[in-house]
Amino acid sequence: MAGAEHPEGPGSPAPAARPPARRGGMAGGIIQKMDKGPLGHIVAVGSGKGGVGKSSATALLAAELRRRGATVGILDADITGPSIPKLFGLTGPLSDHGEGIEPASTPSGIRVVSSQFLVEDERTPVIWRGPLVTRLILQFFQGVNWGPLDYLLIDMPPGTSDVPLTVFQTIPIDGMVFVLTPQDLARLIVTKAMNMARDLHVPLLGLVENMSYLSCPHCGKSIDLFGPSQAAKVSTEYDIPILARLPLDPAISAACDAGTVDALVLPDVARYADGLLEAIRAHEKDRPALL
Amino acid sequence: MAGAEHPEGPGSPAPAARPPARRGGMAGGIIQKMDKGPLGHIVAVGSGKGGVGKSSATALLAAELRRRGATVGILDADITGPSIPKLFGLTGPLSDHGEGIEPASTPSGIRVVSSQFLVEDERTPVIWRGPLVTRLILQFFQGVNWGPLDYLLIDMPPGTSDVPLTVFQTIPIDGMVFVLTPQDLARLIVTKAMNMARDLHVPLLGLVENMSYLSCPHCGKSIDLFGPSQAAKVSTEYDIPILARLPLDPAISAACDAGTVDALVLPDVARYADGLLEAIRAHEKDRPALL
Repeated sequence: MAGAEHPEGPGSPAPAARPPARRGGMAGGIIQKMDKGPLGHIVAVGSGKGGVGKSSATALLAAELRRRGATVGILDADITGPSIPKLFGLTGPLSDHGEGIEPASTPSGIRVVSSQFLVEDERTPVIWRGPLVTRLILQFFQGVNWGPLDYLLIDMPPGTSDVPLTVFQTIPIDGMVFVLTPQDLARLIVTKAMNMARDLHVPLLGLVENMSYLSCPHCGKSIDLFGPSQAAKVSTEYDIPILARLPLDPAISAACDAGTVDALVLPDVARYADGLLEAIRAHEKDRPALL
Repeated sequence: MAGAEHPEGPGSPAPAARPPARRGGMAGGIIQKMDKGPLGHIVAVGSGKGGVGKSSATALLAAELRRRGATVGILDADITGPSIPKLFGLTGPLSDHGEGIEPASTPSGIRVVSSQFLVEDERTPVIWRGPLVTRLILQFFQGVNWGPLDYLLIDMPPGTSDVPLTVFQTIPIDGMVFVLTPQDLARLIVTKAMNMARDLHVPLLGLVENMSYLSCPHCGKSIDLFGPSQAAKVSTEYDIPILARLPLDPAISAACDAGTVDALVLPDVARYADGLLEAIRAHEKDRPALL
């Protein structure tokens, strides 16, 4: 992408202090969104709340789109709690041959950039305050040779602080998918994130309810772990579709821990991808100016 | 506590810009920890990762300590994703009669301060960058009339960015409890948080494994949802005790959603409190300088 303009590699742990002048960013106090470049669709996946399965929902979606022949990248924006590399069994470091950062690649060819690749020991924390985190996000967007991609997915961290503010204000995302669980607490916190996105004019593409159901592997009966679903209520209130309901499935947990999410094929995920593509099309039709 | 020194109430959404000069904080570029004042023990509960049950582990512990007759407060440091008020069914606003912020109180008398009390609609996000979040944390510690407390628990947000940095550098915490789940991904991210705490000289008090086991409510058999436990491995590696293993229990989820955590009595939680008190005693004995 804009690698040639920003040749700083991952060698320096703190991203370059130079502002992203040529491709947008802050200019005279006015925040401009950066150019989309050769990226077809940019979709953020978030929740506000941690641990609801944002990263697995991102990874499963990427794998499904890739299986359908699309070129796909994942920008892991959870700088201080990165999960994406683990889900695909990827390790760093990233390479840079003087023309920008080369993303890592999963077995199926999904391109991935994550702060996890910047540390030698996977257990080393990235202890950075907001401004540094923000700069790394921008470098991950504009300093990486993403190449032409049909879809760039952004795995968002929990919270409504620096990272979502920066992503919403400076990266030209087409919209955001929100992940929640049936817990009422997750509903509460995802609505905070949805209100933030709406305030910042980011289209809400749809909901994914994760840990939606669980079947006992012994007796086959359904277990109501987290109370009744809240997705229908949120869907109606915000007038956005439910893209998928994903199960709490030991097979998904096992694939996440083994780094083999790439190879996981689930009918629920196929429906999720269908729903997302439909939502993107609907937004393109309704609001051409935003896309 | 230091209410009289910091009479700013919650009326101004952005906390006072005045540095916490009299009770520590930054002075001449050197970070000083604030005074403990009338607080017996200050314990942070965190994980690095979201959604592993930090807040419920904090709330259940507070309720158990309160049942034993202790005076207990909870500082909800998850400013952009607050969960504690919902778990106890508390709503704002906080009051301030000119002598500092009065915490809210649960039915059993646990004193609580949270950013949730600063917004009128519970779904309103707190969209703040790091510096503002940091100031609110300091105000929640020093500008609140905590009164004499046996235990102040700090519910930490996910990540290793502004909030944990500020808490570790400026609040005189006795130590931290780390919550994880059996997922290997949770192990990875909790070790980042543990390394951060160790780097910043915060005693690691112990581990709580949440969502540790699940019994099918239909057939009673045990379900291995998240793979084999990682707690023993982490416990050995870091030489800290496993304080408790808490189940993934629909009754806990229901109490969290209903705001009745205060009234939940579980044998696992009693063991958790016992373990924590023992860990605090061991640290007091071993490292008197730190306490």
